[in-house]
Amino acid sequence: MTAALKLGIAGLGTVGAGVVALLRRNATLITARAGRPVEVVAVSARDRSRDRGVALDGLRWHEDPVALAADNDLDAVVEVIGGSEGPARALVTAALEAGKPVVTANKALLATHGVALAALSARTGAALAFEAAVAGGIPAIKALREGLAGNAVTRVAGILNGTCNYILTEMRLKGLPFEQVLKTAQDLGYAEADPSFDIDGVDAAHKLAILAALAFGRPVDLSALHIEGIRHVSALDIALAGELGYRIKLLGIASREGEGVTARVHPCMVPLDSPIAAVDGVFNAVLAEGDAAGQIMLQGRGAGAGPTASAVVADLVDLARGRHAPVWGSEAPLDTTPALPMARHRGAAYLRLMVLDQPGVIADVTGILRDGGVSLESMLQRGRAPGEAVPVVMTTHECDEARMQQALARIATLPAVLEKPAMIRIETL
Amino acid sequence: MTAALKLGIAGLGTVGAGVVALLRRNATLITARAGRPVEVVAVSARDRSRDRGVALDGLRWHEDPVALAADNDLDAVVEVIGGSEGPARALVTAALEAGKPVVTANKALLATHGVALAALSARTGAALAFEAAVAGGIPAIKALREGLAGNAVTRVAGILNGTCNYILTEMRLKGLPFEQVLKTAQDLGYAEADPSFDIDGVDAAHKLAILAALAFGRPVDLSALHIEGIRHVSALDIALAGELGYRIKLLGIASREGEGVTARVHPCMVPLDSPIAAVDGVFNAVLAEGDAAGQIMLQGRGAGAGPTASAVVADLVDLARGRHAPVWGSEAPLDTTPALPMARHRGAAYLRLMVLDQPGVIADVTGILRDGGVSLESMLQRGRAPGEAVPVVMTTHECDEARMQQALARIATLPAVLEKPAMIRIETL
Repeated sequence: MTAALKLGIAGLGTVGAGVVALLRRNATLITARAGRPVEVVAVSARDRSRDRGVALDGLRWHEDPVALAADNDLDAVVEVIGGSEGPARALVTAALEAGKPVVTANKALLATHGVALAALSARTGAALAFEAAVAGGIPAIKALREGLAGNAVTRVAGILNGTCNYILTEMRLKGLPFEQVLKTAQDLGYAEADPSFDIDGVDAAHKLAILAALAFGRPVDLSALHIEGIRHVSALDIALAGELGYRIKLLGIASREGEGVTARVHPCMVPLDSPIAAVDGVFNAVLAEGDAAGQIMLQGRGAGAGPTASAVVADLVDLARGRHAPVWGSEAPLDTTPALPMARHRGAAYLRLMVLDQPGVIADVTGILRDGGVSLESMLQRGRAPGEAVPVVMTTHECDEARMQQALARIATLPAVLEKPAMIRIETL
Repeated sequence: MTAALKLGIAGLGTVGAGVVALLRRNATLITARAGRPVEVVAVSARDRSRDRGVALDGLRWHEDPVALAADNDLDAVVEVIGGSEGPARALVTAALEAGKPVVTANKALLATHGVALAALSARTGAALAFEAAVAGGIPAIKALREGLAGNAVTRVAGILNGTCNYILTEMRLKGLPFEQVLKTAQDLGYAEADPSFDIDGVDAAHKLAILAALAFGRPVDLSALHIEGIRHVSALDIALAGELGYRIKLLGIASREGEGVTARVHPCMVPLDSPIAAVDGVFNAVLAEGDAAGQIMLQGRGAGAGPTASAVVADLVDLARGRHAPVWGSEAPLDTTPALPMARHRGAAYLRLMVLDQPGVIADVTGILRDGGVSLESMLQRGRAPGEAVPVVMTTHECDEARMQQALARIATLPAVLEKPAMIRIETL
């Protein structure tokens, strides 16, 4: 038996305590798979007195997480504090500088400082592993970086935020409005008191930035992402999507488009028969297309103590076995084509207007679309209510995002158009 | 740049030629991900003159595949000959004995001789990698062995044979009988001239034996599997399954059942809303349940030159990077509980009888089930045709397989029961 891999864990919230518990519960299995014991010997957290459901007796306690980086009796550090700055960043930086391998679940840190941290990891040779940063218990990082290593990846996409997927699923199943479902999700602990990080798409964007960097071999670049959340998705649009044969999902999509790469997070209409349409509730999914493998899709639980601890321990077993991969899959960037702005995106879309039911409105709207170069595939006015508001639903053929936005801005100025037009992009995955 | 990983490839059929082509097409990407070039320098195949769509000039040609094992200028051998005996087994054995790493797509070899080959690999330290042996382009081996390394796995299941899934999907979509769809599949090249290996469940059983060994850390044991194919699945049963809210899939399922492990391949009724029900056509899926990660499912293309070559190259990149895992995930078996025979299985089932529409038949059938300890959940006689044959459909509650089989044998002897009763097990995954 080789010597144990001795760990320090920084952060003893749900995930940190979950890692400690999992390493103990499955110690026999994990020792066999790792070829050596994997043992927590030190921890760092603020409150020493809090009951975390796991015994912490006999572990060295460091008030300051950065002190773990200097603890010479540690073989690796697990960072589950979270946040792109502050103690998490300080600890990871200090540990890598000290040549100490780091396992982290921190998507914000990776998405924001991933280029610098990868360079640091390469310089000191200390591994930086982050399976838990994307899609929880789904081994998406490993699948992309190692499983598809032979492929030129053309697209990576996914349902990357369980809170949003839960809200959209509940809105559909119960026909309820966004605000009401959000409230329930908060009561159930599926959404934070301040939910904006999830529902405005920021969390999904962090994960997409990481997946795109791995898929295409590019430096991680959060600033190049187009990000929209789900606040403006209405129960009406969800119901109409169903009638048209679609389901609304918040997707992160990064794809190679000839002269560059686009990366975007926004609500999408996906055909009901596409595999990702069936991934409901808090579940996540990651889809990748390779030139050799074709399309693969992985689904499972994207959050929670168990799934996240599962991913952290997978990284620890790799460390213990000496299985190493460069942070972004190769030592040098593989792709240096530009990131294309959202205005360069081309795609089809669903449009829904609330208009006064009076003669000439449809003609005005379709005239603007025609003049703007947006070609309609279908148009449907729902019900008749002369002089009152009725929804008008349209789907377009593929067109330029920039043209679409210009046409929508003009349509919004029509007196008979009563609210900002709803536009949801149609994606065939 | 480290020195190239020099390969010999044995077998230049679709897959072998696909590996050569992929290594060349994506050479830049693969070199970066592998940290060094991965180069084919020698090959072995029978016919030197055949056009395989890839240039083979300058490669050393060995008539006898076993000669690759003795070629001192090779760092690794790729075996894509196939078959559990003969040249494939001889080559893999010789290479491992010579300390030469082997990458293989050979499920029959692994399922049949996996215990001996793993022992040999452990003795000489030469890696034996087989991502391509299960589910083609889906990185299922890596996900189970490394991605779920922290988990006690409770169940692994999958759609493991694309030919069967294609046939069942076409039977459902077109309402056609098995024989006719098989003929079309043969014409399209989705099924072999002698299709028994696929449609009798043998190929799926090889893959399940491998997945079960990895999932539970047990010696691979093909002989412990219960195997049924899809020959007896009728278009009528497929249609009735749909009406009852199920889809019929040929699944391989291995699960931990208290005192042991069961492993079985047979047609299953799966609820329409389970993720695996939506995996249609030639696609494969692998589902695993871990105590920490919960349920994950991976889907994608399970066969073909591209997906299989993708998996082979993933293994080669791992080899080139020095990422190593024991053949079955750990050096020693983790689980020594017995393999339970099929008679010990418990589950619900769908039964469909063709009976003479005459008084008393239903009473006789339900009486036998009651006396045998099989409890009915639902019963439906389809249509009326006094004195003629009508289908009677039943679903049972969970019961012992042994009791079910005894009851079915008695039912089959009733004069009014016109054919062998159809029984398809119901699985909620």
